[in-house]
Amino acid sequence: MQFTIKQIAHLLNGEVKGDDSLTVSKLAKIEQGVPGDISFLANQKYEHFIYTTKASAVIVGKDFVPKKEISAALIIVKDPYNSFTQLLEEYQKILNFSKKGLEQPVFVGQGTEIGEGAYQGAFSYVGNNTKIGKNVKIYPQVYIGDNVTIGDNTLIYAGVKIYSNTIIGNNCVFHAGAVIGSDGFGFAPQEDGTYKTIPQLGNVLIEDNVSIGANTTIDCATMGSTIIRQGVKIDNLVQIAHNVEIGKNTVIAAQTGIAGSAVIGENCVFGGQVGVVGHISVANGTKVGAQTGITRGIKKENTSVAGKPVSELNDYLRSVAVFRKLPQLEKQVRELEKRLEELIAEGVFS
Amino acid sequence: MQFTIKQIAHLLNGEVKGDDSLTVSKLAKIEQGVPGDISFLANQKYEHFIYTTKASAVIVGKDFVPKKEISAALIIVKDPYNSFTQLLEEYQKILNFSKKGLEQPVFVGQGTEIGEGAYQGAFSYVGNNTKIGKNVKIYPQVYIGDNVTIGDNTLIYAGVKIYSNTIIGNNCVFHAGAVIGSDGFGFAPQEDGTYKTIPQLGNVLIEDNVSIGANTTIDCATMGSTIIRQGVKIDNLVQIAHNVEIGKNTVIAAQTGIAGSAVIGENCVFGGQVGVVGHISVANGTKVGAQTGITRGIKKENTSVAGKPVSELNDYLRSVAVFRKLPQLEKQVRELEKRLEELIAEGVFS
Amino acid sequence: MQFTIKQIAHLLNGEVKGDDSLTVSKLAKIEQGVPGDISFLANQKYEHFIYTTKASAVIVGKDFVPKKEISAALIIVKDPYNSFTQLLEEYQKILNFSKKGLEQPVFVGQGTEIGEGAYQGAFSYVGNNTKIGKNVKIYPQVYIGDNVTIGDNTLIYAGVKIYSNTIIGNNCVFHAGAVIGSDGFGFAPQEDGTYKTIPQLGNVLIEDNVSIGANTTIDCATMGSTIIRQGVKIDNLVQIAHNVEIGKNTVIAAQTGIAGSAVIGENCVFGGQVGVVGHISVANGTKVGAQTGITRGIKKENTSVAGKPVSELNDYLRSVAVFRKLPQLEKQVRELEKRLEELIAEGVFS
Repeated sequence: MQFTIKQIAHLLNGEVKGDDSLTVSKLAKIEQGVPGDISFLANQKYEHFIYTTKASAVIVGKDFVPKKEISAALIIVKDPYNSFTQLLEEYQKILNFSKKGLEQPVFVGQGTEIGEGAYQGAFSYVGNNTKIGKNVKIYPQVYIGDNVTIGDNTLIYAGVKIYSNTIIGNNCVFHAGAVIGSDGFGFAPQEDGTYKTIPQLGNVLIEDNVSIGANTTIDCATMGSTIIRQGVKIDNLVQIAHNVEIGKNTVIAAQTGIAGSAVIGENCVFGGQVGVVGHISVANGTKVGAQTGITRGIKKENTSVAGKPVSELNDYLRSVAVFRKLPQLEKQVRELEKRLEELIAEGVFS
Repeated sequence: MQFTIKQIAHLLNGEVKGDDSLTVSKLAKIEQGVPGDISFLANQKYEHFIYTTKASAVIVGKDFVPKKEISAALIIVKDPYNSFTQLLEEYQKILNFSKKGLEQPVFVGQGTEIGEGAYQGAFSYVGNNTKIGKNVKIYPQVYIGDNVTIGDNTLIYAGVKIYSNTIIGNNCVFHAGAVIGSDGFGFAPQEDGTYKTIPQLGNVLIEDNVSIGANTTIDCATMGSTIIRQGVKIDNLVQIAHNVEIGKNTVIAAQTGIAGSAVIGENCVFGGQVGVVGHISVANGTKVGAQTGITRGIKKENTSVAGKPVSELNDYLRSVAVFRKLPQLEKQVRELEKRLEELIAEGVFS
Repeated sequence: MQFTIKQIAHLLNGEVKGDDSLTVSKLAKIEQGVPGDISFLANQKYEHFIYTTKASAVIVGKDFVPKKEISAALIIVKDPYNSFTQLLEEYQKILNFSKKGLEQPVFVGQGTEIGEGAYQGAFSYVGNNTKIGKNVKIYPQVYIGDNVTIGDNTLIYAGVKIYSNTIIGNNCVFHAGAVIGSDGFGFAPQEDGTYKTIPQLGNVLIEDNVSIGANTTIDCATMGSTIIRQGVKIDNLVQIAHNVEIGKNTVIAAQTGIAGSAVIGENCVFGGQVGVVGHISVANGTKVGAQTGITRGIKKENTSVAGKPVSELNDYLRSVAVFRKLPQLEKQVRELEKRLEELIAEGVFS
């Protein structure tokens, strides 16, 4: 997409100094800008870059007074950082919602309804009796099974797989390769050493404003629903097992795994590669360090935890500090023993 | 799918008390039942729910005597829990095998044979000279390469990718996004710091009754086969490297990784996020705790192990218990040293 | 593919002893060879297998003198191991580049150019204004977005998803299910506990000779590029976050995760399941043990590190050795204390 500097200044309610007929098509950091880019200057520390930047336009504050010549056009606004963020968001919206209409071939089952403003990429598949809201973007090679419900303005990137009976809210984003509703991992051991599959007949329920990362997997419940509450943000390659519930506005970084029937509170923050055992609860507001192993429930709200098995963060850090000195500690103990032996041998005690 | 209560009672060899013409379409826990659901009561602890449940039907035992009025129809059987499990399994079978026939467009290569009773979802791809058994369900956007063999009754969910030359048995299940037969990770370091790719010309061999989780990856062997024996159950996002062999009826939880040429025994149980180094063997019946790092072979059968580097479970738990008290232990050592110094300084020893 | 032994001998500049009209179609280890296979004998230790192998042909050295009868045809060359490796590579090349032409249906957007010698598998998708070089192999169900650039001889296996604006060099390999260019995980916390999405407008830049494993995910930069330098080899299920840079010829094993804006040096080797925190640098030539947690930058080049938090490998091993003896160490400290108490109680000090 290309915009003139004049159009952008108008959007940001700013004034242009320079050639406002030039077009820009990308956003860039001021030190990396090339012709066709627009950048911003909000921090004096970076001022020297404005005199050498190759960007076509730079957003600056009202109080900016150039000390040398500047080749870029300037867009003068009240708060350049806010204006740039606004521009980022507008640009994202345009990118997200520029796709519209139907690319052939697609497959749509019987009894299925797709709302207005949709994008259906080529080779996308929607099963039977599925209800899809307005402005939903279904990228190429997406699979949506039977009896699925999806709210308005949800973005589903290429190759996402959504099993039958899944329920998804409004304004969600699913990144490429995510799998929603695969069978929970449930097998009953038999006497002959084999396992019998426990049927997984529940579904996945995802509320509004949820974001799911690339190649993340969320299993359906055995019965009932695996539940992702509103505002939850999940990174790439995360595993959410059957019957888990994630409380609203909780954030989970990449490669974390949450085992079956665990209940995670609201407003938690999980680092990457965390593991959570099944059938436990984690209190609201818990902050979990990367690679933590949560082996028991966490009852106190708003604590920071780390380590495996999990401890309060400060206890963990104190133990780890000694762990690093263990060879020294062992030596000290050996010397104490030797010393005491020597003293006894010297007969000082008798 | 909808069934009358009469049909279900007939299937379960039970008697109906109430309106047997009502239809039900879902299975639910008694406390969560809504109209159209069928539930069960097997444990007296839950009896109070039967008087308030909104489910249309409840399966109960012959000895159940209602204490109040019940709105649901009752299906009276010998063992309500077993009957409900039977229903779950029937329902799963119907779900799994209800899909049949060909959805256009699909791609089928030359010399390929697909047995009767198959489902071929739209945008699925089967390469050349591939042999597929009876009742195999190939969901949309599945990729099956050239010279692949797949047995009867195998279920392949949406977007699974099976590379050329893979051999798969009967009654297997592959969840969405699983990748079978990608190149083993083999690169030979060269003198200039670059790496030369070691060709990976083997395949993957998967026996009967194997289940593979969503987005799990299994690499082909360098030469010969990466082998998954009968009855193995693998969860989501697991990595199985080239030339690995997994013994029969072994269960592996999510996000575990097994490095090249490791040999895992029969009837092992792996927790999630376990790592296994390459070129080692793990004995039959080993139980591996979540997040364990198996850094050496395990020779004794039927042991429980944990930690990194791996120890017997009890040794690990004892070490971990002290780890949590390390700051205290360090303090004790410091005090012992101080005490001894003081005693020496006081001249008691001379 | 089938070749006569004569054709192979010609390729390897070798002489045949036996029937050179037989055809072979697979490569195998000498102890596993079946009719139709070709194998090799380079190490005397394996000589006894040549008298029993079922392989149709065996590559041997000029100095090999049979002690018994051999049923296989022999191809006599100067260096049998090198010849076999040459054969492996030729075979791989044939496999990789045998696919050509267009399988219908495919989707190609407007303004897109695809070079000669391409393979476009059925149900593959290429967006608008994308430039694809010569001999690029696009397997079925691949998604390539808008404004993407891909160099010559790059292999893209089934179901790979490449987001818009990605730039990819020559001779790269992408295994099935890999996702390139998904949004970085960036969310700004708001006062009401919700998160606002930070637009991710950068891209991914992948240089020449890079290999990316199955179901691996590489996020785009917030602004600018996430960069994978030439010769980097990345295994399956790896997570590379936004704005990361990986130096040339670095090798990363499966299930490793690298957080946002981390900079990894050249010629590093990462074991599996490693975690790297964001905004740090790892020096050139660092060797990282499996399951390490890199919680701080590593400045010294060519060191070996391990543990969590990360230490130099030898320090880590020394601490771990004591960790395993912690219960014993604790007991020693308790005994020292008791001993000292007893001595004091006995009044020897006064």
